[in-house]
Amino acid sequence: MRAGPSQEEIRRQNLGALLRYVHVHGATSRATLTTALGLNRSTIGALTTDLVNAGLVSEETPKETRRAGRPSLVVRPESARVYAWAFSIEVDRLRIARIGLGGVVLDRRALERPRGLMAAETAPMLAGELKRMQQEVLPGTICIGAGIAVCGMVRRDDGMVRLGPHTGWVDEPIVDALATELGTGTTPTVGNVADVCAFAEYTRGAAAGCNNVIYLYGDVGVGAGIIAGGRRLTGHGGYGGEVGHMVVNRDGVRCACGSRGCWESEIGEYALLRAAGRPEAHGREAVLAVFDAADRGDARAQAAVRQIGDWLGFGVGNLVNIFNPEMVIFGGTMRDLYLAAAAQIRSRLNSIGLSACLEHVRLRTPKLGDDAALIGAAELAFERLLADPLDAA
Amino acid sequence: MRAGPSQEEIRRQNLGALLRYVHVHGATSRATLTTALGLNRSTIGALTTDLVNAGLVSEETPKETRRAGRPSLVVRPESARVYAWAFSIEVDRLRIARIGLGGVVLDRRALERPRGLMAAETAPMLAGELKRMQQEVLPGTICIGAGIAVCGMVRRDDGMVRLGPHTGWVDEPIVDALATELGTGTTPTVGNVADVCAFAEYTRGAAAGCNNVIYLYGDVGVGAGIIAGGRRLTGHGGYGGEVGHMVVNRDGVRCACGSRGCWESEIGEYALLRAAGRPEAHGREAVLAVFDAADRGDARAQAAVRQIGDWLGFGVGNLVNIFNPEMVIFGGTMRDLYLAAAAQIRSRLNSIGLSACLEHVRLRTPKLGDDAALIGAAELAFERLLADPLDAA
Repeated sequence: MRAGPSQEEIRRQNLGALLRYVHVHGATSRATLTTALGLNRSTIGALTTDLVNAGLVSEETPKETRRAGRPSLVVRPESARVYAWAFSIEVDRLRIARIGLGGVVLDRRALERPRGLMAAETAPMLAGELKRMQQEVLPGTICIGAGIAVCGMVRRDDGMVRLGPHTGWVDEPIVDALATELGTGTTPTVGNVADVCAFAEYTRGAAAGCNNVIYLYGDVGVGAGIIAGGRRLTGHGGYGGEVGHMVVNRDGVRCACGSRGCWESEIGEYALLRAAGRPEAHGREAVLAVFDAADRGDARAQAAVRQIGDWLGFGVGNLVNIFNPEMVIFGGTMRDLYLAAAAQIRSRLNSIGLSACLEHVRLRTPKLGDDAALIGAAELAFERLLADPLDAA
Repeated sequence: MRAGPSQEEIRRQNLGALLRYVHVHGATSRATLTTALGLNRSTIGALTTDLVNAGLVSEETPKETRRAGRPSLVVRPESARVYAWAFSIEVDRLRIARIGLGGVVLDRRALERPRGLMAAETAPMLAGELKRMQQEVLPGTICIGAGIAVCGMVRRDDGMVRLGPHTGWVDEPIVDALATELGTGTTPTVGNVADVCAFAEYTRGAAAGCNNVIYLYGDVGVGAGIIAGGRRLTGHGGYGGEVGHMVVNRDGVRCACGSRGCWESEIGEYALLRAAGRPEAHGREAVLAVFDAADRGDARAQAAVRQIGDWLGFGVGNLVNIFNPEMVIFGGTMRDLYLAAAAQIRSRLNSIGLSACLEHVRLRTPKLGDDAALIGAAELAFERLLADPLDAA
């Protein structure tokens, strides 16, 4: 229903489009930008000058060129100079990274997270580590903000973590806690880890160029980040993608959410360890040990991997029918499960998926690996810059 | 990644925004349009003049006004003059309507559809009825196109009906068949009936103003039209929303799709009639007879309604967790089931839904009733007009 934009809005839109292009694609010639953005050369020149003056990009003459004539200047994102802080709050660890414009990981650290740590104790740990990392940041750089990936349901309006069944978080105000610790004017943007990973893989990973994507993230629980029609599916309050709480087994075990037979109760950490006869174990290392054992021929571990793999394929089949995605990406421990049980997963998926929905769907592992959560958290912060480059910088 | 629009694109966008506003909201004063579209008075005046000259809207002085001063002219969609043809191909019937700009049903007809009728036989029946209806169309009117709602999976690229398990259609080219029969230059746009109903209820029905909506449509099968973030969820090939083939019961009966325990096998026509002890019956009348019987105190019918209602709530719970919608609308026979078993549905939904996802979700019946499919089919045709009013008219 909105009417067309004003001249000022168009300029902002064009600046954002140019900066986004080099942020996603890296160094790009003015000639390519002219074609890609559908703008004329003088407009590209003027926009680039503005972005150079703001310190967001640099221009240089390409070193070599095979063509005759004056070579087109190359526009490069200032990755070492312009950066965002990225935090990932996971069940068993905390991670912090400094990510440069263009998605370059400039620095990254990890801390163990004792299970049970709340937002009020998490924020000082993150802020303390950030301050140590800051000592290595050169003067003259531009921090454009911070993003947080968190295992849990995040309210879109204010970033409140409503429920993290496996972190024990209920209504934990991580944004406020961290903003207070950091003491800066910038409020971090927070997102669910699966949403954030999906966004990263869509922007610059395995799903680049795909407009309909499901990114499954598993650790203790399971969630999905969903890209539908080229946009992040958030739902009304921000809680969309809780596919781990799709009930698949009415007779299944009790789930942490209070329901019974949820998908994550059939494919999450506890299900795998229980099926492998290791109900006392927990954590990512214990999960990986089951895959190792299966790989070495342990029959019980192999049966567990097949059983859980079958349930993974079951839920993926449902999601393929519901969303008709062109790609499903298996992240976190779902990556290991997918690699160990691809045949079961495919077979069950094929038995449930409608043939039209199966035609184009590709199953993939993440291209960004474990960095997806950090890169995606930084992308949340970069979004503000890309929406209005000169105002945000 | 796209750069800002040209002057010509902005004008087209503004014309579309103005026409869309009166198409959705009906007659609107210039003053209201100025505010709603964020454009100045002279721009609104110029745009309106263009649309008046194209015969798409008319302007008039309001009859009464309580305010002092010169009253603002009222812009009205030319509903009687500008129209689209709408077709609905259902399991048991065919419907045709002529729908005026603004969503006004100008004329509607229905034909029985013998189960088993293919596209090649359907198109002449629809075209024949259309020709009879055309005799009552006055000269000087503008037909802007045609839309089709069909029970089945529709390929977005070309409107091919890939699979309609309950119409028996497999790769049926209804668009070509109908275009040939109609013999006009306009190719009809086709959509899945649930998608089309969702679009209609979102545009001008129960879900107006809601950006995250699930519209469940049931007859023999069950499908959903999904609005996510204010846009229609289509999936990669156009097959998104096949929620009826979400498997909910691993031990359930064989489904027409080849899988087992699909949601539609637990809540569709056959499930209800079987549970009510009427396995020989079929069709909408037979379904409504079960609800009638339950209403009159028939214990077996009541038990059937409770059982099927419980499964309906089960799947809705899953969808609420996956999509975090603000509204779920029950259409087709799901409307009757919802009205007959609201308590079971709510109770099962509450046991499965995550509390954050349950907070805002409203359960509703369609506002447009059975007209939703026809109005939505016409909306598909109107979309072209609204994208470029002066070119399409």
